[in-house]
Amino acid sequence: MEAHFVDWLLGRIPADPRLEVPPGDDAAVLRPPPLRRTVIAVDMLTDGVDFLLASDEATPERIGHKALAVNLSDLAAMAARPEAAVVAVALPRERAAEIGRGLWTGIEPLAAAHGVTLAGGDTNTWDGPLVISVTVIGSVLPGAAWRRDGARPGDLLVLTGPCGGSLLGRHLDVRPRCREAIEIADRFTVHAAIDISDGLSLDLARLMRASATRGEIELHRVPIHDDARRRAAIDGIPALDHALADGEDFELLLAMPADDARDLVADPPAGLAPAIIGTVTQGAGICGRAADGTPLPLEAKGWMHDGDE
Amino acid sequence: MEAHFVDWLLGRIPADPRLEVPPGDDAAVLRPPPLRRTVIAVDMLTDGVDFLLASDEATPERIGHKALAVNLSDLAAMAARPEAAVVAVALPRERAAEIGRGLWTGIEPLAAAHGVTLAGGDTNTWDGPLVISVTVIGSVLPGAAWRRDGARPGDLLVLTGPCGGSLLGRHLDVRPRCREAIEIADRFTVHAAIDISDGLSLDLARLMRASATRGEIELHRVPIHDDARRRAAIDGIPALDHALADGEDFELLLAMPADDARDLVADPPAGLAPAIIGTVTQGAGICGRAADGTPLPLEAKGWMHDGDE
Repeated sequence: MEAHFVDWLLGRIPADPRLEVPPGDDAAVLRPPPLRRTVIAVDMLTDGVDFLLASDEATPERIGHKALAVNLSDLAAMAARPEAAVVAVALPRERAAEIGRGLWTGIEPLAAAHGVTLAGGDTNTWDGPLVISVTVIGSVLPGAAWRRDGARPGDLLVLTGPCGGSLLGRHLDVRPRCREAIEIADRFTVHAAIDISDGLSLDLARLMRASATRGEIELHRVPIHDDARRRAAIDGIPALDHALADGEDFELLLAMPADDARDLVADPPAGLAPAIIGTVTQGAGICGRAADGTPLPLEAKGWMHDGDE
Repeated sequence: MEAHFVDWLLGRIPADPRLEVPPGDDAAVLRPPPLRRTVIAVDMLTDGVDFLLASDEATPERIGHKALAVNLSDLAAMAARPEAAVVAVALPRERAAEIGRGLWTGIEPLAAAHGVTLAGGDTNTWDGPLVISVTVIGSVLPGAAWRRDGARPGDLLVLTGPCGGSLLGRHLDVRPRCREAIEIADRFTVHAAIDISDGLSLDLARLMRASATRGEIELHRVPIHDDARRRAAIDGIPALDHALADGEDFELLLAMPADDARDLVADPPAGLAPAIIGTVTQGAGICGRAADGTPLPLEAKGWMHDGDE
C-alpha cells in the first residue's frame, strides 16, 4: 500500500491522531476503539456499470462521493460507527491526475462528515476504464451489529425514506444513513436490517430469506420518491414499480418490534421520514397487500448481480 | 458488500469463528484480538500492468495468490499478524466464472496458511479487463509495528533474501514473509523496515528518506537471485543491476542495531537466508561501496508509480 492517493493529489500528508504511523508506510496502523468489534465492508465501482464517466452527470467528484457513500451505507445497515477507509483506484492514464483529484474532492468531505480516517490507498494508472474500490472499517459493540437474519414474525417493516428513480441522478449523491442508524440503535430495538442498494423488493426478499420469515408489504404505504414519479412520467412504468425495483436508494429497511416501529415513526431522528410499510409473518418469500387487505403479487425485482440467486 | 465471491464460486459459505455475523450480510463483523492495534493495507492489481492474463504464465490462480500475497507482504513489513481480508474483483464478462474460480483457488490456501479470515468481498462483472483489489487487516501490539522512519545511524541493513529477476515468473508466486517477520520482531530489535516491492535501491531510498538517514550498500554483499542471473544472460544487463532495480521481490529490508543484525544472520528463522548488505549513516540518500571501500554510484531505480517522487 502507498498513501499516493493522498500524497500525490494534495502534495501533503494529512495528519490524523488515530493513525499510529505516518501515512505512506507499508500499511496504516489504527487505534481501534476499545471493547468494540471491527466491521469491514468493501465495494468496487466500475465505469460503465456503476457510473458513466463519459456522461456529464458522473463527475469524478460525484463518483468519489458515491464510492465511499455506498460503503458507509453498508456500515449503516449494521448500525456500525464509521472509523476508517482505504481507497484503491485504477485511473485511465490520459486523465489520471484530473480524475484522481476529482475523486478526492468527493471523498474527503464525506469522510470528514462521518469521522472517517482516510488511512491510505493504492493509486494505479492503466489503459482501462476507471475503477474505484473502497474498503471501510467501522466499529460496533459486541452483539450489537444489526444483521439480516434476526427478523421475527410480528415485527413491523420500517423504511427510512422514499425509494425509486435514483438513476435520474440521485444514485450519485448517496446520503448514507450512518448517524440515523446509530441513533435508532441507541433508542430502539431493531431485529434485522438491510440497506436498499439493489431494489426494495429484492432487498426485502433477501432480508426475509436470511431470517427465514415472510414479508408482507402494504403497497399503498411504500413511500415513493419524486424521482420515481418523474421516471414514471418518462417511461410509463408505474412509480410504485420504480420504488420497488430501481435500487440505489440507500435507505434502510428495518424489522422492528411493533411498539418500537411506531415510536420510531412518531419521533424519528432529525431529517428522517420513516414509514411502516408492512409486517413480518411466518413463512417464506414476500407478498403485497392492497389498502383493503387484498393480496397482491410482489416479485423480488431489482439489480441482480451475476451469480445472484 | 456481498459475500458473492465466496458464495457464488463455491456454493457454500465458509464458517469462521472470528466472524460474528454470517458472511453475506452487508458487512462482516470481526472480533479483533484484544489490546492490539489494527493494521490495514490495500493493493489493487490490474491486467496489463501487474500481470498479463493473456499470457500462459498468469493463470487466474497465480493472480489470486499474488493479489493476497502482496498485501500480506505489506503486513510483514510492519511485523503485523494477518487477521482478515476482503476481496473486490471486476471480472471480464465472458470468462467471469472461470476466472473467479481460479482467483479463489489461488487465494484460499494462502489465506488458510496465514490464518486469514476471508471476511467477504464484492464481485463485479464488466466489459473491461480483470481487476482485483484486496484489503488485509492485521494486528500488532501498540507501538510494536515496524515503520519506515525509525532507522538510526550505526544500524546495519539486513535483506531477508536474494533479489532480482522476479519478472521471469517469481513475481506471481510471492512468498510473503509474515511468519518470519513476526519471529524476527519477537527475537530482535528492528528500527525500521520496508518490503522490496518496487526495487531494492528504490525501496532503500524510501526507507532512508522516511528515517532522514543515508544508506550505504556494500554492493558485493547484495544477495543476487538466480533469476537475476538468468535475466542478465538474456538482456546483457548485469545481474546486480537486476537485483537492485527489478522489484517484486517481496523480501524485507531491515535497519537493525549491529548486534541484532549479526545475531539474526547467525541464527535466522527457518527457511530464511538473511544477509547484511550495508550500513545506515548520517546524511541523506543512498550510495554504494566496493569490497575495498571505494564509493560507487547507486541510483534509486525501480518501479515508479505515476506521481512518485
